[in-house]
Amino acid sequence: MFFQIVDILGTIAFAISGALVAMNKRMDPFGVLIIAFVTAVGGGTLRDIMIGIEPVSWMKNMTFVYVIIGSVVFAVLFRKRINFLRKSLFLFDTIGIALYTLVGIETGLIAGLHPIICIALGTMTACFGGVLRDVLCNEIPVVFRKEIYATACILGGFTYFILRKFLYDENYLFVIAGLVVIVIRLIAVRFKISLPSLYKKDNI
Amino acid sequence: MFFQIVDILGTIAFAISGALVAMNKRMDPFGVLIIAFVTAVGGGTLRDIMIGIEPVSWMKNMTFVYVIIGSVVFAVLFRKRINFLRKSLFLFDTIGIALYTLVGIETGLIAGLHPIICIALGTMTACFGGVLRDVLCNEIPVVFRKEIYATACILGGFTYFILRKFLYDENYLFVIAGLVVIVIRLIAVRFKISLPSLYKKDNI
Amino acid sequence: MFFQIVDILGTIAFAISGALVAMNKRMDPFGVLIIAFVTAVGGGTLRDIMIGIEPVSWMKNMTFVYVIIGSVVFAVLFRKRINFLRKSLFLFDTIGIALYTLVGIETGLIAGLHPIICIALGTMTACFGGVLRDVLCNEIPVVFRKEIYATACILGGFTYFILRKFLYDENYLFVIAGLVVIVIRLIAVRFKISLPSLYKKDNI
Repeated sequence: MFFQIVDILGTIAFAISGALVAMNKRMDPFGVLIIAFVTAVGGGTLRDIMIGIEPVSWMKNMTFVYVIIGSVVFAVLFRKRINFLRKSLFLFDTIGIALYTLVGIETGLIAGLHPIICIALGTMTACFGGVLRDVLCNEIPVVFRKEIYATACILGGFTYFILRKFLYDENYLFVIAGLVVIVIRLIAVRFKISLPSLYKKDNI
Repeated sequence: MFFQIVDILGTIAFAISGALVAMNKRMDPFGVLIIAFVTAVGGGTLRDIMIGIEPVSWMKNMTFVYVIIGSVVFAVLFRKRINFLRKSLFLFDTIGIALYTLVGIETGLIAGLHPIICIALGTMTACFGGVLRDVLCNEIPVVFRKEIYATACILGGFTYFILRKFLYDENYLFVIAGLVVIVIRLIAVRFKISLPSLYKKDNI
Repeated sequence: MFFQIVDILGTIAFAISGALVAMNKRMDPFGVLIIAFVTAVGGGTLRDIMIGIEPVSWMKNMTFVYVIIGSVVFAVLFRKRINFLRKSLFLFDTIGIALYTLVGIETGLIAGLHPIICIALGTMTACFGGVLRDVLCNEIPVVFRKEIYATACILGGFTYFILRKFLYDENYLFVIAGLVVIVIRLIAVRFKISLPSLYKKDNI
């Protein structure tokens, strides 16, 4: 129940972020809907098709479809006044990536994959919706350039697997690893910490 | 037989549209072939991998492979005089998206998915070849910005599921829903109707 | 054993090429890692999900994961001095696409697919890592525009299927077809041969 609510909040944040980027690119309503959809479910879809869970998860759960459509309608109607929601959306998004990371890790564990692959799947679930959003909007994905975003997911994933050697209660593990993702991201944004870009001029 | 011919005409239109965009981007023959291929089969491929039909459909039907290669050769040879085919190609394309929408809906129904997911699969089958073409050509996908294209597919899909409650003959259903897609698209292009872009300046 | 080493050399070359492009785009370390990963395993991943081999190959073989991570660390540390490796990397890359082409063809044969589809899968395995790299970096894929690259893979694939009618020893077949890919690519680069771009101004 608790996880379900968190999941829906994350989906709302992702869908609205997609809708806003799409409107910013002067897309029509169909484009806005698709970009919102891809942002919200793209990471999980990629995870599912890579490990063979098909039909992919969102096709079997209409709740998310309705939540995304509702979020898009909301974002379109209130697009001029949505700035005052900025903080709530940032918070939802942060909680969302923490949860998505854990969902991805758990999916990998169920499929019997190596911990590093599980962490990769968790990070993919959390971050690749945004990557696909940016690719469809013809931008270099923002998570490759800016902010501690994927890094928070990766560190949360490592925390999960390290603690797993000492702690046997899955619920505690999830809460602690999720908090690691959230805290790292909040600190990074609060203090404007980002990874340095590794610039290299000449290309081969 | 009738459907097969329509399918081939649609494939030709999609492949040629891909080849023309690729030539316009100064690609070499290999690039032109790939973009034509992706435009023609990309939507169906995405649908298949999302619901778990693998190997994906076009790998099991060489007819389409030959039709696409033939269309590319034709488009390359006659690239300077292809403008006078503009109207035929537009018509093929319109019939093509109508058929692809219905193929996608049927595939979803066979997989036992919810009507809204089926409509999404139909629209994806019809439109995502063009989306992938534009992504590979480094453009914002044109279906997200211009014309009633995906919208026609979505409305055709709704028509299918609404009529399905009253009409039990699949063939009639297909023909009517297909005509809805075609008529909406023709009217939209004839009268230059398009959805308004939902522009919003600030991004979060 | 021999193939394994060649495979690892190819993976190193692909991962480093991805890392260099990503650094050139001013990405942060996470972005560099992802682009390197996608360049190295993207083609094989696409092949696997299209024919239904899931979880995809690299998730079941940690060697490649470690090789890619190691290559990225190497490329980042020595990014200012990597130019003197240019020739070795080009050679690794050339051997890599030859091997990847053959791996793709074999995967297609095992799945019982038509020779033309097998050649397409081989070319996809060899070239689509680079295509995905360029899409994520917001560039038109370089293999669609420049150099005999995919063409070498396609010709190697045809060689394989033509010789297969006369030659029954798989090992000989692989070595000859692989050499065809390598020789064509080396000649093309040495003599600056490339396919002409098929430019066409007006688009429909």
